[in-house]
Amino acid sequence: MPYFDAASALPPHPVARQALLASLDEGWADPTRLHREGRRAGLLLDAAREAAAEAVGCRPDELVFTPSGTHALHAGVSGVLAGRRRVGLGLTLSAVEHSALLHAAAAHEAATGGTVTEVPVDRYGAVAPETYAGALADGTALACLQSANHEVGTEQPVAEVAEACRDRGVPLLVDAAQSLPWGPVEGAWSLLAASAHKWGGPPGVGMLAVRKGVRFAPRPPVDERESGRAPGFPNIPAVVAAAASLRAVRAEAAAEGARLRGLVARIRARLPELVPDVEVVGHPELRLPHVVTFSCLYVDGEALLHELAREDFSVSSGSSCTSSTLTPSHVLRAMGVLSEGNIRVSLPPGTAEADVDRFLAVVPGAVSRVRERLGAPGGASGAAASGPAAAGEPGAGLVVDALGRRCPIPVIELAKVFGEVPVGATVTVLSDDEAARLDIPAWCEMRGQEYVGERPADQGVAYVVRRVS
Amino acid sequence: MPYFDAASALPPHPVARQALLASLDEGWADPTRLHREGRRAGLLLDAAREAAAEAVGCRPDELVFTPSGTHALHAGVSGVLAGRRRVGLGLTLSAVEHSALLHAAAAHEAATGGTVTEVPVDRYGAVAPETYAGALADGTALACLQSANHEVGTEQPVAEVAEACRDRGVPLLVDAAQSLPWGPVEGAWSLLAASAHKWGGPPGVGMLAVRKGVRFAPRPPVDERESGRAPGFPNIPAVVAAAASLRAVRAEAAAEGARLRGLVARIRARLPELVPDVEVVGHPELRLPHVVTFSCLYVDGEALLHELAREDFSVSSGSSCTSSTLTPSHVLRAMGVLSEGNIRVSLPPGTAEADVDRFLAVVPGAVSRVRERLGAPGGASGAAASGPAAAGEPGAGLVVDALGRRCPIPVIELAKVFGEVPVGATVTVLSDDEAARLDIPAWCEMRGQEYVGERPADQGVAYVVRRVS
Repeated sequence: MPYFDAASALPPHPVARQALLASLDEGWADPTRLHREGRRAGLLLDAAREAAAEAVGCRPDELVFTPSGTHALHAGVSGVLAGRRRVGLGLTLSAVEHSALLHAAAAHEAATGGTVTEVPVDRYGAVAPETYAGALADGTALACLQSANHEVGTEQPVAEVAEACRDRGVPLLVDAAQSLPWGPVEGAWSLLAASAHKWGGPPGVGMLAVRKGVRFAPRPPVDERESGRAPGFPNIPAVVAAAASLRAVRAEAAAEGARLRGLVARIRARLPELVPDVEVVGHPELRLPHVVTFSCLYVDGEALLHELAREDFSVSSGSSCTSSTLTPSHVLRAMGVLSEGNIRVSLPPGTAEADVDRFLAVVPGAVSRVRERLGAPGGASGAAASGPAAAGEPGAGLVVDALGRRCPIPVIELAKVFGEVPVGATVTVLSDDEAARLDIPAWCEMRGQEYVGERPADQGVAYVVRRVS
Repeated sequence: MPYFDAASALPPHPVARQALLASLDEGWADPTRLHREGRRAGLLLDAAREAAAEAVGCRPDELVFTPSGTHALHAGVSGVLAGRRRVGLGLTLSAVEHSALLHAAAAHEAATGGTVTEVPVDRYGAVAPETYAGALADGTALACLQSANHEVGTEQPVAEVAEACRDRGVPLLVDAAQSLPWGPVEGAWSLLAASAHKWGGPPGVGMLAVRKGVRFAPRPPVDERESGRAPGFPNIPAVVAAAASLRAVRAEAAAEGARLRGLVARIRARLPELVPDVEVVGHPELRLPHVVTFSCLYVDGEALLHELAREDFSVSSGSSCTSSTLTPSHVLRAMGVLSEGNIRVSLPPGTAEADVDRFLAVVPGAVSRVRERLGAPGGASGAAASGPAAAGEPGAGLVVDALGRRCPIPVIELAKVFGEVPVGATVTVLSDDEAARLDIPAWCEMRGQEYVGERPADQGVAYVVRRVS
C-alpha cells in the first residue's frame, strides 16, 4: 500500500515512536516545577532543544518549540512585525509560500493596515534573488521565503535572498518545513520555522528559531513558557521524539536523498513518455529529493486521485477539483502552469523502487480511464468534431459555453471544437470556473496555439484562443 | 516516591498510553486528505470528538481540540470578544482565575482598550453569585469563571453565575481544567475549556466547547482546521488518547473522588493539630476531591518544598519565595490569606492511604527544621526577646527594619519583637517584600492582634500592628 504523500505528513519514525514512549514516563510533568518530576521533564526539554538547535544550526536559546509548524510561522510573523513596528508595516513574501504564511500575512493586513508584497515566481516556482531584493522597501519589516516549495519541490535561492535582506537590514524568515529533514538551511537567515511531522516526528511539534539580535515582540497573550514565545503547557514527550527523529533522518539524509532523487528523476523522465498531454512541473534540478508534481490535460484531479487510490497509491492534488475552495492551488497559479489533473507524488524515505515502477505502470491507465469518462478528445491532436456546445458566431469564430461546468470540462470542450475552426480563427470559451484562467492558457502553450486573452462576459469570463496551426 | 502535584499535571493514564500508541499508527496523516491514511486519521478524530463531547456535555460540532488548555482559554476569550464587539468590550472574571485567563484579559485590555472587571472572592476563594451578577454591565461581552480553583480547590457557584449571565444575555466561559475529570460542569455555560494532562491525557491537548448560538469570531490567522477555531496540523494520536483517558477516569470518578476526599479531609483535620501556626485554606466542603492547601507561619515556601522533597514528596507552592515574580500567588492574595510557607497538595488517583499518613508524619518535622533555620520564634506566643532589628522610637512603639528581606523574614522579625511592646503599643514593620502586605495582616488575624494598616515609607512600605493582648 504505497503512501506517496510524504510532503503532507510522514508516519512516525521508529526513533520517534521509541523516544515518545520513553519520554512519556519522564516528560509529562511541568518543567517549571521544582520537584523531581518537574526537573526531570525540564532536563528532557533542555536536551531536546540542544539537539534540535544543532540540527537547525542555531543556539539552543534561539529555538522554541510550538504546537505546530503553523504556530511557528504565525508566531514568527507576528513577533517580528510587532518588534519592528517602528521600521514599518511592510511584509514581503514569495507568491508560493505555504497557506499558513499567507494567512498570517492576511491577518497582518487586516489588523494593522500593513502592506503585503508578493514576489512573483518563474514557471518552475522559484523567485529570482534580484526580483526579491527589488521588492524590499524602506518600510519592509519582515521578508519570508520558503526553503523549498511544498507542492512542486522547487528549491528557493534562500542564501542569495538572505544576503539581499541583510544588505537592507530586513530579517528573513525561512519556512523550512519541507527541507529541514534533508539538511540545515544555508545562508544568513534570521528566523526559521519547521514542523516535526514532515520528518516522521510526532504530530503536535513545530519549531521557531529567532536569531539573537532580531527585534521580536511576541503577540500577547504570552506566558513564561518557551521564552515567552509559545504559551501553554509544553508537550515534552513529543518534543523529545521530534528532536530524536530529526537526528535520525539527518543521519540517513545524504544516502536516502540521493536514492529518492533517482526515483523522482525516473518519474519525471518516464511520465511524459507514458502519458500523453502531461506536464511535469517544478524545477528539473534545484529541487527536493522526494517530490515530483505533474498535471494532466483533460483530467479531473479528484477523479485521478481516486483511480490511483484504487491501485493503492496515496497521493495529493493541487487541482481545484479536489478542494472545497473551488480555486486551483495558489502555487500552480503563481507558476502559470496547468492545474487540471494535478498530482503531487512525495516519496517517504524507504520507498521501494518496485513501488515507483508499479506507479509508472498504473498511471497511464488511470489517466485514460478518467479522460474516457469525461469524454476527453482521444488523440493528442484533439480532433473530435462533435463539440456539443459549439455555436457559430459571425466573425468571431466559435463560442463554447462551458458556464457552470467545473475543470477540466471547459478545456475539454475547447479541445473538442478546436479542429472545427480554420487557422487564424478564434474559439471563445465562456467559463465561470476559476481554473479556466490557468488551464486555457496552459492548454495553448502545450498545443502551440495562441492565447489571445480574457474579457468579462455577461456570465463568467470569455477566454479567447486563436488557432495558429 | 509520592507525587502530590496532580493539579499541575498527571502522568499518562494507562489508557492514554495505550490509545496514544495504537493511534500513532493510524492517526498520523492529514485528516483533510482524500487518501486512505487521511480518511483513517479523520475517522479517529471524529470518534475522539464524539467521546470528548459526550464527557463535556455538548454536541460534537461544538467542540474543538487545541494544543493546550491555555490555547483553549485564549481562543475562547478572543473569539467571543471579537464576535460580540458590538455589545461592548467588557470582560468580567473572578479574581482567582488561572493565569492563562488573566493573560488573555490583559491582552484584551492592551489591544482593544477594553475593560476587565474582577469579581472579588471570599476568604475561601469563592465568588458570591450576587456579586458576580452585579459586576455584569451593559457593555459586558464575556464573563469567565473557573469551575474550581486550581490552587486551593474551592468550587465556584458556576450554575448560579451561569443563570445570572443568561439573564443578562452574557455568555459564560467556564475554565473546567481542574474539575472536568471528576464530572461534567453543571449549569447553562456557553463556553468551556479544559486540558488533558490534568486527567492523565497526554500533554499537548486542550479542548474548547462553544455552544451553538454564541457569536464567535476566531482571532486570525485561522485555517480550515477545527472549524477555523484552532489552526495547525492536528495531533490526532494525542487527541484520541485524551478522549479515551477522560472516559476512563470518569468511570472511576465517583468512587475515587470519594476516597480522595476522605484522605484530603484527614489532612485538613490533622495538620492544624500536628503543626503549630498552620492555616488550612480553601472551602471546607465545596471543594475538589483531591486538593488541599495550607500555609505555615514563619516558613519559606521553597525551603519547605525542598524539605518535603527530601522526604520524597512532590508538592507545589503559591508562596512568592518560590516564584521568579517576587509576588505571592494572586489567588492567595485575592483570598486575603497567609501566603508564607504555602503548600498545595493534590493527590493523584490511586494515592495510597499510607503515603498520606507518612506525609502527615513528616510535615511537622519539615516545618520545624525550616523555622529553626530561619530563627523563627519558638513558642506559639512568639516570646523571643532578642529582636535584632528592633529600635525604640518615642511615641511610635517599635520599628522593625526588614527592608531587603524576603518572606517570611518580615513576619518573623515582627513576631520576635512583639513581646517587647506593651499592650496598646504598636510595632511598625518596614518591608519592600510584596508578600508582607498579605502576611502581616494574616499574622494579626492568626494571633488575634490588631492590624492598623499600611503607609508609604521612604523605602518600601510601613505596616503597623497594635498589640491588643
